[in-house]
Amino acid sequence: MTKINIGLDIAGGDFAPQCNFDGARLILDQLGDRVHLTLIGDQDLIREGLAANGIAPDAVSVFHAPEVIEMGDSPMRALASKPNNSISAGLGLLKAGKIDGFASAGNTGAIFGAAVVALGTVIENIRPCMMAIAPRETGKDAIILDVGASADSKPENLYQFAILGHTFYKYIMGEENPKTGLINIGEEPEKGNEVVKAAYKLMAGSTDFNFIGNVEGNELFGGKADILVCNGFTGNVVLKLCEGWYRTCRRFGLKNDYLEKFNFENQGGSPVLGINGSVVIGHGISNGKAIMNMVKLTAEIVENKLPWRIKEALSNNEQ
Amino acid sequence: MTKINIGLDIAGGDFAPQCNFDGARLILDQLGDRVHLTLIGDQDLIREGLAANGIAPDAVSVFHAPEVIEMGDSPMRALASKPNNSISAGLGLLKAGKIDGFASAGNTGAIFGAAVVALGTVIENIRPCMMAIAPRETGKDAIILDVGASADSKPENLYQFAILGHTFYKYIMGEENPKTGLINIGEEPEKGNEVVKAAYKLMAGSTDFNFIGNVEGNELFGGKADILVCNGFTGNVVLKLCEGWYRTCRRFGLKNDYLEKFNFENQGGSPVLGINGSVVIGHGISNGKAIMNMVKLTAEIVENKLPWRIKEALSNNEQ
Repeated sequence: MTKINIGLDIAGGDFAPQCNFDGARLILDQLGDRVHLTLIGDQDLIREGLAANGIAPDAVSVFHAPEVIEMGDSPMRALASKPNNSISAGLGLLKAGKIDGFASAGNTGAIFGAAVVALGTVIENIRPCMMAIAPRETGKDAIILDVGASADSKPENLYQFAILGHTFYKYIMGEENPKTGLINIGEEPEKGNEVVKAAYKLMAGSTDFNFIGNVEGNELFGGKADILVCNGFTGNVVLKLCEGWYRTCRRFGLKNDYLEKFNFENQGGSPVLGINGSVVIGHGISNGKAIMNMVKLTAEIVENKLPWRIKEALSNNEQ
Repeated sequence: MTKINIGLDIAGGDFAPQCNFDGARLILDQLGDRVHLTLIGDQDLIREGLAANGIAPDAVSVFHAPEVIEMGDSPMRALASKPNNSISAGLGLLKAGKIDGFASAGNTGAIFGAAVVALGTVIENIRPCMMAIAPRETGKDAIILDVGASADSKPENLYQFAILGHTFYKYIMGEENPKTGLINIGEEPEKGNEVVKAAYKLMAGSTDFNFIGNVEGNELFGGKADILVCNGFTGNVVLKLCEGWYRTCRRFGLKNDYLEKFNFENQGGSPVLGINGSVVIGHGISNGKAIMNMVKLTAEIVENKLPWRIKEALSNNEQ
């Protein structure tokens, strides 16, 4: 079996490059039979890092891209002024078919923006989005999208997010007919702002996914819906609020398996959905385990041909 | 000293009328020296309840309003079809100056809508809003507004919410120059959706309040800002998400003083800010302690002449 070749941005993450070498070691140990790694970044830094971390030079491929987009850089300005940066290099390799997927815990805005421009959207008139896991105590986790790719959304964007989420959940989470809910401030169809009310009307009775209605803030992790649809502003506030809650709980000494699902030091990352390619963006605070999980998720997206499935679902949608 | 006369809606709350009799007993015990209660609802039910709960009939005033707006009623329809309901009666007493403040744990939409119509806004072109406490581990709690009065907001509404919040914090929380933050998805001024970006521009450099910039979801309870400004959609999702987190923490056996501040069974309620009168709406699940805290907050708003302070602040604002 040919291994899946995933490009890993060695410069991505608050703790780069070390978090990525830690991740690479875990990936070779645990996913080495199905994943081949291409490390992207400054080649001298990579060779030194491999040696320092006990990774054989021939265990991975290396692609030289010496410039670094910092976490605090303005995305578009940095992409323009640093043409040999590791993010653009990785996306270039992906577009050229030299790698099958790209993963980076770097500057979110830069990765997202560059990915949309470099790879293009799967159809015209689709707004790509970022997705995150919404952990659940029992059974499969839910997913939430958009978590910050766009700050404003139209009703038809929310409808498309529902298709993106449905397709992800069906193929990656393995659920034939998952339940899709709309995050809102009340249960009734007439609740919410103008955009959400119009989205509800579009979604009600859809055959593109299994719409179960509105989901309020206190029900997000309760199992009412598998796919939680919202605009990127709301999704981002929700995600970061959970991060804050996790820290508070830990400070109070609460630690358990469920809570650890909210620990973004360990969690995989956010796939970019709706583009022609498999790209996952990791959390800035990713450690080695998170890097491994990010690459693992990227590989699952590649294996399940998710971008193609999404293109198919959007092309056939009834809207 | 003349006591402050607070009208309490005996029909309000999921556990009405009992939660209100429990609350009344606590109020007479703990606030009896400064608060006089006027119980509003069906007079027979009130007389029976007073007897059953060991409250002397002459310890309170009673106003007969036999109709009940249920928690699930459509607010505007119910207000129209039940003219003798306890909410409208209480607001009528308040408008007529027969009571100094009105508190109810009933149907939020009905109380809010009826309050705005009956009492009017403090100035023209102001959108009243609902506020909630954002508990903090150390020091004074923060406040968050709007938490659901409006689902859509314009930049100038967010600016006004900041004035309302500043005035509340100054007079009720006793802080001369509290810090006001804008809930957003990034720290930088250019982050966020169009409304929030425009609001940032309005708020930056304002002399109406002390604007400290954007606050992200993971910083809401961290002390960065005393007043957290957002649209009602975001605020409502945040508030309910916290409610869900509280339940999850309790299920895992975590219990402490800080966490209990998120227990809406005990917490006071949401003041309606920007109207000509002191009105506080309690959470549906309020118990007797929450009813007492709701009445206590109403009394503090009356004592500090908050509606008048808000009118003054809005009339003088620089926008």
